[in-house]
Amino acid sequence: MLKDIDQGLPQSLERLFELLRIPSISADPDYAHECRHAANWLKEYLETFNFTTQICETEGHPIILAQELSATDAPHILFYGHYDVQPVDPLELWHTPPFEPAIIKDASGCDVIHGRGSSDDKGQILTFLEACRAIYNQTGQLPVRVTVILEGEEESGGEHLPGFLEVQKNSLHPDMAFICDTDMATPDVPAITAMVRGLVGEEVTIYAANRDLHSGLYGNAARNPIQVLSEMITALRDGQGRVTVPEFYEGVPHIPEEIKSKWQEIGKTDEALLSPIGLKEAAGEKAFKAVEQTWCRPSCEINGISGGYEGAGFKTVIPAKASAKISFRLVGQQDPLKIRKNFREFVKSFIPQDCRVEFESHGASRAGMVSLNGPVLGTVCDALRDEWHCETAIVGSGGAIPVVNDLQRVFGIESFLVGFANVDDCIHSPNEKYNLRSFHKGIRSWVRILYALQTVKL
Amino acid sequence: MLKDIDQGLPQSLERLFELLRIPSISADPDYAHECRHAANWLKEYLETFNFTTQICETEGHPIILAQELSATDAPHILFYGHYDVQPVDPLELWHTPPFEPAIIKDASGCDVIHGRGSSDDKGQILTFLEACRAIYNQTGQLPVRVTVILEGEEESGGEHLPGFLEVQKNSLHPDMAFICDTDMATPDVPAITAMVRGLVGEEVTIYAANRDLHSGLYGNAARNPIQVLSEMITALRDGQGRVTVPEFYEGVPHIPEEIKSKWQEIGKTDEALLSPIGLKEAAGEKAFKAVEQTWCRPSCEINGISGGYEGAGFKTVIPAKASAKISFRLVGQQDPLKIRKNFREFVKSFIPQDCRVEFESHGASRAGMVSLNGPVLGTVCDALRDEWHCETAIVGSGGAIPVVNDLQRVFGIESFLVGFANVDDCIHSPNEKYNLRSFHKGIRSWVRILYALQTVKL
Repeated sequence: MLKDIDQGLPQSLERLFELLRIPSISADPDYAHECRHAANWLKEYLETFNFTTQICETEGHPIILAQELSATDAPHILFYGHYDVQPVDPLELWHTPPFEPAIIKDASGCDVIHGRGSSDDKGQILTFLEACRAIYNQTGQLPVRVTVILEGEEESGGEHLPGFLEVQKNSLHPDMAFICDTDMATPDVPAITAMVRGLVGEEVTIYAANRDLHSGLYGNAARNPIQVLSEMITALRDGQGRVTVPEFYEGVPHIPEEIKSKWQEIGKTDEALLSPIGLKEAAGEKAFKAVEQTWCRPSCEINGISGGYEGAGFKTVIPAKASAKISFRLVGQQDPLKIRKNFREFVKSFIPQDCRVEFESHGASRAGMVSLNGPVLGTVCDALRDEWHCETAIVGSGGAIPVVNDLQRVFGIESFLVGFANVDDCIHSPNEKYNLRSFHKGIRSWVRILYALQTVKL
Repeated sequence: MLKDIDQGLPQSLERLFELLRIPSISADPDYAHECRHAANWLKEYLETFNFTTQICETEGHPIILAQELSATDAPHILFYGHYDVQPVDPLELWHTPPFEPAIIKDASGCDVIHGRGSSDDKGQILTFLEACRAIYNQTGQLPVRVTVILEGEEESGGEHLPGFLEVQKNSLHPDMAFICDTDMATPDVPAITAMVRGLVGEEVTIYAANRDLHSGLYGNAARNPIQVLSEMITALRDGQGRVTVPEFYEGVPHIPEEIKSKWQEIGKTDEALLSPIGLKEAAGEKAFKAVEQTWCRPSCEINGISGGYEGAGFKTVIPAKASAKISFRLVGQQDPLKIRKNFREFVKSFIPQDCRVEFESHGASRAGMVSLNGPVLGTVCDALRDEWHCETAIVGSGGAIPVVNDLQRVFGIESFLVGFANVDDCIHSPNEKYNLRSFHKGIRSWVRILYALQTVKL
């Protein structure tokens, strides 16, 4: 099987190149027909290896739903990817045209697939689909049941995916999800992104006097809402960098030392993370390293603050109100609604009697976290180790990945993010590339994973 | 003398009405010739009672310099006022045309002089000048030496006055200044504004990462400058409402209890000050009442704060910088430059090693405070008591009055602010008025003051 993949690599690449040549830029309405072109191409492609397919219309770009469910007794996996790509501006910075894919040597002599979408996400999704294709062509059947969902709006808001998933809620019954849209730990070390932080966004506005005041006439005597707001913000963290909202750390999981030590091994040191942004010391909880603070620890950030006179020069005003946009990043089982409630109580406790506060919600999503002790994670890790000859890194993502939340909410399933991209792939930038090695060994990895999942006990 | 004033009141009013009919709106270039008209009118008027006069040109409206120095051995007082007025929009809200002065009855049956400039400041300056005129006409000489400076840009920035004063620095040698541009304590109680707060303005910008960051990817680990700024602002006041900048209270004077208790008697209660602006409790130092906090205690106010995303909706950013505009109101002998220096040191002590801070200065002026035990204050108080038959209130002004600082800086003299306006005079608004009683008893007051000053020992 794996030898067939090696021998068929030129043909696999040719299929990838066909897809890469379609400029399916979802953000630009002028390219809507190209998005449909890509969807149609994928539909026909999937049908060549026994998937039943539908092009599902949305108010935006279509979503492809494809299934190969013949392995009746095996687990049912849902594979999510996206066929749309980022715009290509500024075009003059590309070394070769973005939609004329080519294999070139990078600075270190490695072969890379050059072109928009090679890494994000067409190259990545074809690692999975070429694996399915090879297995089907060799055996006439996949080892597990597979549902494929490929959307066309991931790069432009993805607003129609959640509604589509809701519609499928009672007809699809996947056991788990796989997503191939993330990085490896290093070019040699595979990674599974097993923890994705959730988010609670809140806007807080504190009102004091019934109008803006002259700070000469009223300065000292009139309550200043900027001062009140600052005091509340200051109190949100204690001297150890811990968030002080009551019950905030309920549901925060303990991450085993062997997982965290791997993060240092793969180079996620404080210096590596902070030095590129001009900083030296991790600013969060003192007991945790920078990578831990962003991957497995919850946080509270002030995303914006506003009040009084903000223009050039000076105006001696005491404003009637001041506001801040504040977000919490959540991990593990933290409950976003409970945190919102406790945060609001916390803020109210800082409001003097003659001020009032208003809140506005800006989203609430749970963290996505797979079971670190569950049977799937270990199985996938082993399969990846067999292909890459080293231990798989269990990593996190500090930012939210909405589809992970959507899949959790609609189907109640965990998402395993297994990707073969690299941090230097220039996704969203000129000269996007995907290592040829990622493409080749990515296909081989999925063959191993699919067979390994065949016997996993859920 | 006083009887002459009573008998001559109709003629005094006619002279005031002539001046009020000149629409000397300094902010509107279309009225520049009217400003000059007012200056010329005042020049000719002053010459009718023995003042030597000059119209001093500036790049804006002219300044009148007039002197009557024949009382060789008597003190030399500088009287400052302004002949320009505020614009009159919205015109439709005026009950009678703004530049057609008239005496009308107000709601309580009092006679008031109605028209733009009646209170701010033409009516007030003519209380002083009509007093001089009456004394000269009766005696052929003023009891003290008098220099009059009348500017035409007080309502539009006053930018040329400081330069004019500097030019006069070595030719004028006044002993003290009088300004008639303030309110009485109540319609029955005269007031001397003896303390005017100074100001130090500072803009503080705190820089952290070298660019705006995604708060998912970096939240917790990357220093958030809004958080740092909030912590610094919080620390600027202690739990008792005192400003914590080192040595901040050096030079803050003790105000005798009899002066402060008068403030409550004239109605400056916490409720009277705070209830109109929708507040209940004085927010500054707990040991002081609201009026004390604004008149005789220094303060620190946050006039503006800005950082991160401030638009509609939400953006999960950790900004590269955050800034605040912060001002200190000063009293007594507080040193603005020392406070600026100590404040900057204070801020720097809050800056983590991988942040940096920049400061921008926005003005530094000392408080204006007359000696509460000096011979002039008591003399003027006594003269006012004789006219109004009650004790004069010694009051403060929370906001800066730039000319007080200019006179202190250039001539090294104290300014005594003696005004007969009332809080309901609608200065800067439609239907400006000046109580006829203020005009009449104001002239009488100045006669008493000028004679009393004749023998004051400096």
